[in-house]
Amino acid sequence: MNNLTKKVSELSKRRGFFFQSSEAYGGVAGFQTFGPEGAELKRNIEESWRNTFSRELGHREIQAPTIMPEPVFKASGHLDGFDDMIIECPECKSSIRADHLVEDNTEIEEAEGFSTEKIAEIIADHDLECSNCETSLTGIEVEDFNLMFETSIGPGNGQPGYLRPETAQGIFVEFPRLKEYARNQLPFGITQIGKAYRNEISPRKGLVRVREFTQAELEHFIDPDEDEPNLDKVQDVELKLYPVDKQGSGEYITKTVEEAVEEDIVHNWVAYYLGIAKKWYKEIGVDMDRFRFRQHQKGERAHYATDCWDAEAEIDGDWIEIAGFAYRGCYDLTKHHEHSREDFTIFKEYDEPVTKEKTVVQPDMGYLGPEYGGKAQKVAKKIGELAQNSPEEFEKEAVNVEVDGEKLEIPTDKCNFEVKEVTESGEHIIPHVVEPSFGVGRTVYTVLAHAYEEDEIDGEERRVLHLSREVSPTEVAVFPLMDKDGLGDKAQEIAAKLREKGFSVKYDDTGNIGKRYRRQDEVGTPVCVTVDYETLEDSPETVTVRDRDSTEQERVEISKLVDYLR
Amino acid sequence: MNNLTKKVSELSKRRGFFFQSSEAYGGVAGFQTFGPEGAELKRNIEESWRNTFSRELGHREIQAPTIMPEPVFKASGHLDGFDDMIIECPECKSSIRADHLVEDNTEIEEAEGFSTEKIAEIIADHDLECSNCETSLTGIEVEDFNLMFETSIGPGNGQPGYLRPETAQGIFVEFPRLKEYARNQLPFGITQIGKAYRNEISPRKGLVRVREFTQAELEHFIDPDEDEPNLDKVQDVELKLYPVDKQGSGEYITKTVEEAVEEDIVHNWVAYYLGIAKKWYKEIGVDMDRFRFRQHQKGERAHYATDCWDAEAEIDGDWIEIAGFAYRGCYDLTKHHEHSREDFTIFKEYDEPVTKEKTVVQPDMGYLGPEYGGKAQKVAKKIGELAQNSPEEFEKEAVNVEVDGEKLEIPTDKCNFEVKEVTESGEHIIPHVVEPSFGVGRTVYTVLAHAYEEDEIDGEERRVLHLSREVSPTEVAVFPLMDKDGLGDKAQEIAAKLREKGFSVKYDDTGNIGKRYRRQDEVGTPVCVTVDYETLEDSPETVTVRDRDSTEQERVEISKLVDYLR
Repeated sequence: MNNLTKKVSELSKRRGFFFQSSEAYGGVAGFQTFGPEGAELKRNIEESWRNTFSRELGHREIQAPTIMPEPVFKASGHLDGFDDMIIECPECKSSIRADHLVEDNTEIEEAEGFSTEKIAEIIADHDLECSNCETSLTGIEVEDFNLMFETSIGPGNGQPGYLRPETAQGIFVEFPRLKEYARNQLPFGITQIGKAYRNEISPRKGLVRVREFTQAELEHFIDPDEDEPNLDKVQDVELKLYPVDKQGSGEYITKTVEEAVEEDIVHNWVAYYLGIAKKWYKEIGVDMDRFRFRQHQKGERAHYATDCWDAEAEIDGDWIEIAGFAYRGCYDLTKHHEHSREDFTIFKEYDEPVTKEKTVVQPDMGYLGPEYGGKAQKVAKKIGELAQNSPEEFEKEAVNVEVDGEKLEIPTDKCNFEVKEVTESGEHIIPHVVEPSFGVGRTVYTVLAHAYEEDEIDGEERRVLHLSREVSPTEVAVFPLMDKDGLGDKAQEIAAKLREKGFSVKYDDTGNIGKRYRRQDEVGTPVCVTVDYETLEDSPETVTVRDRDSTEQERVEISKLVDYLR
Repeated sequence: MNNLTKKVSELSKRRGFFFQSSEAYGGVAGFQTFGPEGAELKRNIEESWRNTFSRELGHREIQAPTIMPEPVFKASGHLDGFDDMIIECPECKSSIRADHLVEDNTEIEEAEGFSTEKIAEIIADHDLECSNCETSLTGIEVEDFNLMFETSIGPGNGQPGYLRPETAQGIFVEFPRLKEYARNQLPFGITQIGKAYRNEISPRKGLVRVREFTQAELEHFIDPDEDEPNLDKVQDVELKLYPVDKQGSGEYITKTVEEAVEEDIVHNWVAYYLGIAKKWYKEIGVDMDRFRFRQHQKGERAHYATDCWDAEAEIDGDWIEIAGFAYRGCYDLTKHHEHSREDFTIFKEYDEPVTKEKTVVQPDMGYLGPEYGGKAQKVAKKIGELAQNSPEEFEKEAVNVEVDGEKLEIPTDKCNFEVKEVTESGEHIIPHVVEPSFGVGRTVYTVLAHAYEEDEIDGEERRVLHLSREVSPTEVAVFPLMDKDGLGDKAQEIAAKLREKGFSVKYDDTGNIGKRYRRQDEVGTPVCVTVDYETLEDSPETVTVRDRDSTEQERVEISKLVDYLR
């Protein structure tokens, strides 16, 4: 199986699943086009994801733009921290991803979480060389390289914009409006399927590490004190787990979702989604023998995530991340709450009103307005926060707040600070977020690779994709044995009828039947229906139905064909 | 109806159809997010388009990246010519789209095709002012502003890439591979639904002039000498046409597709697609009284198009372009054939082999290779072209060709030029392209605006969207009168059953029934089903079915509900 990648890529190019884009101009690494078969397969996988992760769970889907303005990514942390480590060869000037260089050439399995200094040290210790020209990289500086694609919005110098590196931010940033659609009630989930972009230092061939890709993400907003996942739904689903303490050993543990939660191996919300994902992957044809859930190492985990697991699929001995399941806590919404003017909280009603002492301020806008102009609202917000967190500050003559990096002093008598006894019917909380995030292209690729087989039929070598009916581009192919004597018309009629009944159908009347079967085998069509001379002779009329996997043929009455196929 | 735009935008924001993106950070003009209702409406419209323009016509859909490398746009002409005219106010520094300034403030209806000089002249003649600060713009230079968003691919200075300004180029550039999937047979059609980007100088509010948008495009590749559209399919469809010679008069002519072709008003291939489009627009709910096809003026037409018509919809007295239908000829494929190394032709077999004199060259690659390195292939190609077009040049000692702007001289004896009598079985032709191109967001907007109505029900004002069932986000809403006494369970059961039967269903048990009806009216749900106390008493069980448009209610047996709804 060592050449599976090569074989899948050859078949994909030849049959129209996917191929390098703009090859007429030499192509650019990291950009792939889905051909007719691949685009259908991809759409089917997306639609299946939508059913499983959005519709059936009662979540709702949105579509946000892919270009977003700079303040969003300042708040989210991407502008400052969404980097990969790069090292430039002093000789051939190749740019190399430094952590990958380390992983590929040392016994270290995961280097992504290391600092640039540590990576430089390891490179020196092992005297690692440029993967292109073999020049020693010892002593060369390892730098951070921001992975976002930048552009400029508007005429002239415009304002900086970035292609989103994850679809998630398009959801987070609209939370103040989305919570209204959910009538301010937790929990609720928002999904999005769309493009995301990362300016990878060294993209790989194929769909695994590309610069433009499709994500399917779910942001499930919950009240961490109240909301529990509906574990009943998935409690018995078995998970093949590769937790941090097993990594390196190659040993897995198998636990049901219920056990994984009870034994504290996986966070309950994460485990819930691992269960749903496991069932889904199986349904769309990922081979469960080449599949696992791997826990993130501490350094590898994003700073906000308290628990994070990847779904990984094995292809040619490599484990490829195809989804991530993160408990992001309140990190994202808190950041946007702090950096923007909007309210990213949910008002949570108490069972009974509660009376307590509370510090309140009513900043004098008649003073703040003229003094701080457009910033006055932000200043007022900061004063409010200060009153809550450090009421003692208001004993002084003036209070200090920081707005947009600027330190401001506001006379205390303009703040109208008071300690009041108040009765509150509830409180504002920032929801927590559970995020299952899927790479659609990588899923397409895994499904293709795991469906690929070479076998021998009647002494002839055959390449076949054992795609599940749920995702295969075509459900039924219809052929006339010959395009004459009325066979063509009859076949067209059957094809039309099947289409009407909701099947995706391909009609093919070129080449000999054997060739047509092979063609359909290679694009994963589960069933072929052939109209031959017997069809017209039989009463009632029959057709030959041929199964892709067994290649067995059966005669079926036309009137019973729809039921037979279902 | 003057405020329709405002009303639709208010409803859209409140109910989750669409709204300005990243408003928490002040937003950026030209970027809109589709909320849960809008995303569903948009997907339904896309799916309906896909059925009509791709599946039913036997065309196939691909998905290409949105970022493409510079050479593609050099070849396509976008790098040099995809400009709008901009004028900068010397006082307030606003950037203003100069042709719009002229259209809005003079009697000129279409200024897009004018030169920058002419626009500057008109501005001076009318002494037009800055629309922001009223400073005179007389004498200020009008400049070209390229509308493509630029970015940089790869680390370091990278290589320039652009966000595609139309999905079409993603199809054209892959033609050499796509023709293989079509087994090198014309005609065939390739479709694509995806994002496109234009850095508009002055985006408008809402979905009409945005910087990031979704296109649904079909590129139908044909042999202009052989292929005829299947006019039978649409011959009787009536088209409301606004040809060039009527423009300004406000008078339309109504012709069937057949008449429009016979009377030479519309190019036959374009007319064919106008017919299909007209039927489709009607089906998805565009109001035919506020719809027309307008022919492009000569100056407005892209340089390659021999005939071009827009579909336009009227909203608040403005006519908005929602689709374009262009006969692009062989322009695009020829450009890519010339600029790239690939073969963008189709080999067209003659009925019988033809014997004729032909000039052939076999350039000496052993000479060209060392001499021109990476360019050798291009040089050879140019020599080949020269031999065909100007065989007399080979009588000289050396021939001259131009490659990538560089003039080269090649000794004739390295070209192996010959005139041979050859028998050919066919010839290479560059296909022509017919392109129906749809703006999906604008279609969504038109469908919403044309579906919007305010009426009065039982003395109460109501806002309602008369969306067609084909595209409405929800087909059926199911309510329990109260969420008690088993009504909720029964309603859930009905909702689940309808979902199983393929209906898109919303379940709602909050607020009084009247409010719930209003909510569904505002998102365009055609039918509401209510489970009440009668339901449990009746035998067989019944529910109340309420029609959105008439607001009439009927009792229907649950067992007959699915058939009733169908």
